[in-house]
Amino acid sequence: MSDAYLNFANSAFGARLAGMLGLPRPVPLERFEAGQPVVAGDVLVGAGGTPELLPALLAAFRAMRAATVAHRSVQGWTAMANQAGLMSGLWSTGEQPGGPLKAVVFDATGLATVAQAEALYQCFHDAVRSLQSCGRVLVLGRPPEACPVAEQATVQRALEGFVKSLAKEVKRGIAVQLVYVAPGAEAQLEGTLRFFLSPRSAYVSGQVVRLAPFEAPAPSDWVQPLAGKKILVTGAARGIGAAIAETLARDGAQVVCLDVPQAQDALQAVAERLQGRALALDIADPAAAGQIAQAALADGGWDGVVHNAGITRDKTIAKMPPHLWQTLVQVNLVAQQAINQALLERGALQPQARLVCVSSISGIAGNLGQTNYAFSKAGVIGLVHSQAPRLPRGMAINAVAPGFIETQMTAAIPLAIREAGRRMNSMGQGGQPVDVAETIAWLLSPASQGVNGQVVRVCGQSLLGA
Amino acid sequence: MSDAYLNFANSAFGARLAGMLGLPRPVPLERFEAGQPVVAGDVLVGAGGTPELLPALLAAFRAMRAATVAHRSVQGWTAMANQAGLMSGLWSTGEQPGGPLKAVVFDATGLATVAQAEALYQCFHDAVRSLQSCGRVLVLGRPPEACPVAEQATVQRALEGFVKSLAKEVKRGIAVQLVYVAPGAEAQLEGTLRFFLSPRSAYVSGQVVRLAPFEAPAPSDWVQPLAGKKILVTGAARGIGAAIAETLARDGAQVVCLDVPQAQDALQAVAERLQGRALALDIADPAAAGQIAQAALADGGWDGVVHNAGITRDKTIAKMPPHLWQTLVQVNLVAQQAINQALLERGALQPQARLVCVSSISGIAGNLGQTNYAFSKAGVIGLVHSQAPRLPRGMAINAVAPGFIETQMTAAIPLAIREAGRRMNSMGQGGQPVDVAETIAWLLSPASQGVNGQVVRVCGQSLLGA
Repeated sequence: MSDAYLNFANSAFGARLAGMLGLPRPVPLERFEAGQPVVAGDVLVGAGGTPELLPALLAAFRAMRAATVAHRSVQGWTAMANQAGLMSGLWSTGEQPGGPLKAVVFDATGLATVAQAEALYQCFHDAVRSLQSCGRVLVLGRPPEACPVAEQATVQRALEGFVKSLAKEVKRGIAVQLVYVAPGAEAQLEGTLRFFLSPRSAYVSGQVVRLAPFEAPAPSDWVQPLAGKKILVTGAARGIGAAIAETLARDGAQVVCLDVPQAQDALQAVAERLQGRALALDIADPAAAGQIAQAALADGGWDGVVHNAGITRDKTIAKMPPHLWQTLVQVNLVAQQAINQALLERGALQPQARLVCVSSISGIAGNLGQTNYAFSKAGVIGLVHSQAPRLPRGMAINAVAPGFIETQMTAAIPLAIREAGRRMNSMGQGGQPVDVAETIAWLLSPASQGVNGQVVRVCGQSLLGA
Repeated sequence: MSDAYLNFANSAFGARLAGMLGLPRPVPLERFEAGQPVVAGDVLVGAGGTPELLPALLAAFRAMRAATVAHRSVQGWTAMANQAGLMSGLWSTGEQPGGPLKAVVFDATGLATVAQAEALYQCFHDAVRSLQSCGRVLVLGRPPEACPVAEQATVQRALEGFVKSLAKEVKRGIAVQLVYVAPGAEAQLEGTLRFFLSPRSAYVSGQVVRLAPFEAPAPSDWVQPLAGKKILVTGAARGIGAAIAETLARDGAQVVCLDVPQAQDALQAVAERLQGRALALDIADPAAAGQIAQAALADGGWDGVVHNAGITRDKTIAKMPPHLWQTLVQVNLVAQQAINQALLERGALQPQARLVCVSSISGIAGNLGQTNYAFSKAGVIGLVHSQAPRLPRGMAINAVAPGFIETQMTAAIPLAIREAGRRMNSMGQGGQPVDVAETIAWLLSPASQGVNGQVVRVCGQSLLGA
């Protein structure tokens, strides 16, 4: 689906006109292409207090062949880096900023007092103007709930307000996140860095992610981290589901594409193109969960499930007939629950299986005319929270919550509401189905086992929220 | 401060013009006045599954002299109520709605399966049009994290999406909340019901509050629940702080009003009017915390502290000089932390003391040009979260997070931004300082001891969020 204004505002004539009229000029977002480096430019490293992630960062940057420069707030980075065979120098030696930056990574794990957080201010005060368009900012902290000292917990929690404000002011397609790295997970940062520093996270911003220690080995091949994995994608015949199937196949997965029998032709086409398999089933059918578990067992057990299938049936509650409540809740919530249960009970999942549920910002913030939809999508978050601690060790379940994504579904929204949805976020535009797909691919990767029970919004930092 | 559009749109001519032009017509919100009943009209009671709060609701409604009617979703309410000497009947016996309602209270604690939640839909489908303007909706559930069964946790969590959507579609000044009542806290609902059902909660909507069991006895006098309590209010010379001091005094408290020495005249006037005491101190001064603890000890220990004092120093981070970061963080975060610590260490708080910190939706959602402010206000949330489990048993600490509140501070915001802030919420208007004050008074009440470590937004369900 296309965003005519985005295209216009970035044409030669449109850009001039938008400039004259003071109209917003959303930046065309960079997206992943095969063969690209993870970060196409210099990464500035900053830190405060006594940072705890520098060795882990060094190892990860070396593995992903990223070029780093040091902010004055981080002591000894260049010496450490050069010793490890990674070229690195001081970004700026005086008042003048150094060269352009594609990313800033600030290690905030050492911030134990509010006063120490001034280093955070200094680093971004110095560097933010040097960030190139579609740049990336990552602040790495410690989970406040795991901090032994109250002031440390306070300052770590304060990072969230900083990150969300910075995400709103950087503009130019720059994405800003906060990753809380639990003690013990330091050496397992690479997969998360690769996602958040690369164009794969184009439409994810202002998010807070927690990384816990885990046991799975890193992928042997970062180009195809899902090689050999069998993964079910529901609602795969079109839109976001088709994009998910495609992205997972690109990353090496054998995709089982599921959709309703009425969509069989489109489903078959997607499955054939991806050398996957089609499964024509209506998940609203009470027999479906059993049939799906059967299919998984016949495959020798699946490595992942993406619960993407979902419907909307918008009406204000006073005007909503009962079947719109029932049908929607059945498809969006009961079916996900029943499929998980059948797969788990029958042992139809591999020991390190990953479940990803598609929620929605509507489930987080609520939406007029969507009591049924928001109930179901908040329920999906409930499902993730309640299942995460109950899953067999090694498995994980998470949700993605898309904001305004350009699809046939959103193309049908009346113009004024569509435009509001598109612009009311920090990217000034809607996301693409591939943005949701890339986020799901990251959650399915062996490198993401430490992400469990979480909700990651793919919404360009939509203004809409709790 | 006044909202000219609100007044205009509710004048005879303005209302006609607004109607013709399709402009929003925000409803003048009802606010608490002495002598009013808690709820000025009928309360509809609904329920699903096997509800667990009906006896507690019955006792609370009787105590607050509320008139109830039963929705068809709740079995046996009228019999129970009549037996207890509370007049109650079935609201509607057929297809036609019953009489007008001032509130709907839905006991969702019995919802153990997704299918059972259809009762929730039914109740609000039937009743929502009968809600009077400035009506109240309360959905009462069980904390998902305390549910022993996964599906129960899922459906309880799903309530949040429902409540937030309903809050967005009811309009007409109607406020909608979700209260999670922990097992054991059933009999302690009254204080929370009194707040959320009355006009005291005028500008609070779309909120989720958790109520844990506690030991404090209910107030002997609901008109002056703070009678005899000594409470410090910082930043009390004007604006929201003055309103807080005034509301606490109305509720019986002896207020210690603190502000900077430069505001001494205004401060003295507020303190005299409320028969309280003035304390002219700059909390940014490192000696202040000790002096405050000294004052508390001289008073024999305080029962509450309201950390309202705060400043803004807006600049995008690239343009922000270091002192704007330092000064703001000192006043908004370090001072709160230091005062709490001094009071606790020196034993200058009563055993059931209550601490209330003023955060901001900017600390939750982030805001352009406010990296310093949002850092400090997210830090306040961190302070509340980290202190709550560390406080001596019997004490509690919570935050309120105001949205757009009409003050001299907001009157200085440029018109277009001010109008956006005012209208981008479910009430279509800004809040008044008294709305923040009423919420703080509720948190300070002996009846709220079971509310601890929480953040309650006073924002009219502002669109801005995480």
